[in-house]
Amino acid sequence: MTAEILSVGTELLLGNIVDTNAAFLSRELAGLGVSVFRKTTVGDNHKRLFAALENAFSSADLVIISGGLGPTQDDITKAVAAEYFGQKLVLHEESMVRIKKRFADRERELPENVHLNAMIPEHAHVLPNDNGAAPGVVVSGTTQSVGGKMLPIQTPGRSRHPAFDTEYHKTLILLPGPPHEMEPMFTNYVIPFLREKSGDVFVSRTLKITGLGESRVETMLMDLISAQTNPTIAPYAKVGEVHVRLTASAKSESAALELISPLLDEITKRLSPHVYSTNDKTLPETIVSLLQEQNHTLAVAESCTGGLVMAELVSVAGCSGVILEGLCTYSNEAKTARLGIDANMLKNHGAVSAQTAAAMAENVAKIAGATIGLSTTGIAGPGGGTDDKPIGLVYIGLYINGTAETEKLNLTGNRNEVRLRATNLALDMLRRRIM
Amino acid sequence: MTAEILSVGTELLLGNIVDTNAAFLSRELAGLGVSVFRKTTVGDNHKRLFAALENAFSSADLVIISGGLGPTQDDITKAVAAEYFGQKLVLHEESMVRIKKRFADRERELPENVHLNAMIPEHAHVLPNDNGAAPGVVVSGTTQSVGGKMLPIQTPGRSRHPAFDTEYHKTLILLPGPPHEMEPMFTNYVIPFLREKSGDVFVSRTLKITGLGESRVETMLMDLISAQTNPTIAPYAKVGEVHVRLTASAKSESAALELISPLLDEITKRLSPHVYSTNDKTLPETIVSLLQEQNHTLAVAESCTGGLVMAELVSVAGCSGVILEGLCTYSNEAKTARLGIDANMLKNHGAVSAQTAAAMAENVAKIAGATIGLSTTGIAGPGGGTDDKPIGLVYIGLYINGTAETEKLNLTGNRNEVRLRATNLALDMLRRRIM
Repeated sequence: MTAEILSVGTELLLGNIVDTNAAFLSRELAGLGVSVFRKTTVGDNHKRLFAALENAFSSADLVIISGGLGPTQDDITKAVAAEYFGQKLVLHEESMVRIKKRFADRERELPENVHLNAMIPEHAHVLPNDNGAAPGVVVSGTTQSVGGKMLPIQTPGRSRHPAFDTEYHKTLILLPGPPHEMEPMFTNYVIPFLREKSGDVFVSRTLKITGLGESRVETMLMDLISAQTNPTIAPYAKVGEVHVRLTASAKSESAALELISPLLDEITKRLSPHVYSTNDKTLPETIVSLLQEQNHTLAVAESCTGGLVMAELVSVAGCSGVILEGLCTYSNEAKTARLGIDANMLKNHGAVSAQTAAAMAENVAKIAGATIGLSTTGIAGPGGGTDDKPIGLVYIGLYINGTAETEKLNLTGNRNEVRLRATNLALDMLRRRIM
Repeated sequence: MTAEILSVGTELLLGNIVDTNAAFLSRELAGLGVSVFRKTTVGDNHKRLFAALENAFSSADLVIISGGLGPTQDDITKAVAAEYFGQKLVLHEESMVRIKKRFADRERELPENVHLNAMIPEHAHVLPNDNGAAPGVVVSGTTQSVGGKMLPIQTPGRSRHPAFDTEYHKTLILLPGPPHEMEPMFTNYVIPFLREKSGDVFVSRTLKITGLGESRVETMLMDLISAQTNPTIAPYAKVGEVHVRLTASAKSESAALELISPLLDEITKRLSPHVYSTNDKTLPETIVSLLQEQNHTLAVAESCTGGLVMAELVSVAGCSGVILEGLCTYSNEAKTARLGIDANMLKNHGAVSAQTAAAMAENVAKIAGATIGLSTTGIAGPGGGTDDKPIGLVYIGLYINGTAETEKLNLTGNRNEVRLRATNLALDMLRRRIM
C-alpha cells in the first residue's frame, strides 16, 4: 500500500508552526509497512486542496489529511473530501451528542457553529475524537482509469465507465490538526482500521542508542538493513541519540514478537554497550532505575552544561530518592567556594582539565553524601577557545567506589549543541559505568 | 512572486526527522512578501524529485529545495536540477578550495568523494556555505507555454518555440539540509539575492513576548492584524513565548524602518510589560544584559525545575560575571543541608509553599554573595498532587534589595511542560522586576 500525507493549514505555509504531524504520520505508517512517497502542504484553500487531493490519488492508494476539520470558515477539508468523493455532508448525530457532553463537562457554552464539527461525508466511517470536538473520518471509493487517465470518484453505486481499463480502490482519512487530538486518534482508531484492512497484526520494538551517530549505526547494521523484509528496520536520529525501530507483521502478536526477538538480540549484541533501552525508557529513566536497583545515590557538579545534566535527571518523576542534588558552578569562584576546588589547581591545570573534572566529581559526591559524583567542565564557546583548549573541549568526571575517572571529549557545534552533547555523553558515561 | 518549497530526503518521508527547514523557509519568505502556496516532500529518488520540480514550476516562479546536496549516493538534488535546467554539472573550483581549507583547519582527512560537494550546474550562481562543505546554488532559466502546456527548460540560448504564447522566468535555489548550514546561508546570501531581484528592501523587526498566549496576543492586536498591508504582522508561537514579526518593504532601509517604527511602538505599548525584546535577544540574553547594566549578580535555587533555569542562563556566552551559581535542591535534605532551609518550615508549610520559595531565594543569594536570588519550588507531577496542592502548583521566589517576593502559578500540562513553563515564568518574573 502506498500513501501520501497532506497537511492543510495556511499557518503551515506561513511557517508559524512546524509540521510535526507529518513526521508522526510518516513514522507510524513506515512502522505499519505503508510506503509514503510524498508529503504535501497546502493552505486553507478549496481549489488548491482539491488539486492536491487529485494529485495525491493519482499515485497513492491511501491519503491522510491532517488539519482543517474545525468549525471555522478556514476549515474546508471535509467539504473538499465530500466533493472529491461525490458525497453530501450530513450531521453525524452520535458525534453531536459527544460534543455537547464535552462542552457540558467543561461547563462551557456551546458556540453557535458547533454543529459544523459533526458534519461528515454521508458514507464516511467515523473516528471518535477523545481529545477534542471534531471527529476524524474515513472515506473510501473506487476510481477507474481510462486510457491511463484517472476518472474522478463518483457517488457509490454509479455505473462503470464503458471503456475503463483498471479499477482502483482509494481511501482518504481525515484527522484533526492539533497533535494532542491527532496522535491518540491515529493510535487508537486508525491503526486498528488499517490493520483490519490488511488482516495482519503489527508489533514494534525500539532500541535506543547513545554514543554512536546515525551513520555509524547504519554502517554497523547495513547487512541487516539491506536484507530487511519482515521485520522492517528503521533507524532515526534524535538529539544525541539514535533509535532503531523493528516492526514485524504476522497473524498474531506472539508470532510478530517471535519474528522480532532474534533480530533485537542480534542488534543489541552488535551495538552493545551503546544500547541503553529496548523498552520505552529514556536515558535519564534508565539511569534512575539503575541507581535505584544498585542502591546508589548521585550528586552532580556542572560547569559548561550549567544545569542541563541535573534538569535531565529531574525530568524523571520520583527521582528524589537517588538524585540528591546538583551544583551549577559556572564561575571559578563558585567552583572554589561551593565545591572546594583548590584555586591553585584551577590556576595550574585550568578550570577545563581532567584534574578539575575529577575533583568536581569527587567533591560534589562527598559534599552531598552521595555514592556517585558526576561532573562536567568545558569550553562551549563562542569565546574562550585557545590552541591548547579549543571550543568543544569538555571533560566529564565520574567519582564512584572511591575513585575518580575522567573522559575527554572534542565536540563540534555551536554553544548549545556542545552543551547538549556534553550532557548526553556525561549521562551515558554514568550509565555505562553502572549498567 | 509565488514560491514552492521542496524538501528532499527519505528520512523526512520516514518521519525520522521533523522538517523544521520548511517552516523556517516559509516564515522567511512570508517576511519577504513572497507567497508560498504549497510545500512538498519527496525522498532521495531522481524520478520523483524531477516530477515534483515540474509540478512546482507549473505554478511557482521560485522553487527552494533544501537537502540532498552532499557527496553520497543519496544526494541527487544537484543532478536533478542540472537535468531540469538542461545544464551539465561542473566542478566549482572556488568551492573546492574552501572545502579543502575547511578540512585542513579541522585536521581531518579529505574523503575520496569530497569533490562531489563542489559539483554545480554549469550556469549556476554559488551561495557560499560558511558552516559546511556543500555550497548552495541558484539556477535560473526561462520556459515557454504552448497552448497552456509548459515546455521543459532548455540550455540557455536555445531558440524559442515557434508557437509559444507566454515566456516565464523560473528560479531554483538549492540549499543544504542541515539547519545550521541552511539558515545562515538563507539569511546571509539568499535574502540579499531575493531583495536585489525584487528591487525593494525588506526590513523586519521582531517583538518577543512572554507571559501571554498566542491567541491572547492575536486578540489584543486583532484590529492591527486585520488592517495590515505594509508592514505585515506575523505572530507565531514558540515554547513559552510569542513572537510578532513586523516586515515592511520600501525603496530604502530607512524608509522601511520608518514604516515599522510607529507600529512597533503601538504594539509594544499594548503588550507592555510582556514585550521583553524588540531586538534579537533571547529572554536569558535580555536578563544577562539587564543584570550587567545594573551591576546585579544572580544566584538560583531550583527544586521542581531542577537545573532548567540555570541552564537557560548559562546558554548566554559570557554570563559568568553576573550568574554566580545555581543550586539544584530537589530533595528536602538538600534544601536543608545546602540552602539552610529550616526543617520545621518544610514540615509546617511544605516544600511547595510561598515561605519555602522566599527562603530559598534569600538563602541562595546570601550563600553565593549575589545581589539577587531566584528560586522555584512546585509539584510537576505526575505524582505528588493533593487537593490543597495540585499538580501544576509552583511558587517562584525572588530576593532583591533585601526583600523576598513570591509568585504563585497554577500551570497545566505534563511534568516537563510544567517544568518548562515554570522556568520561563521564573525568568520573566526576574526580568519584569529589573527592567
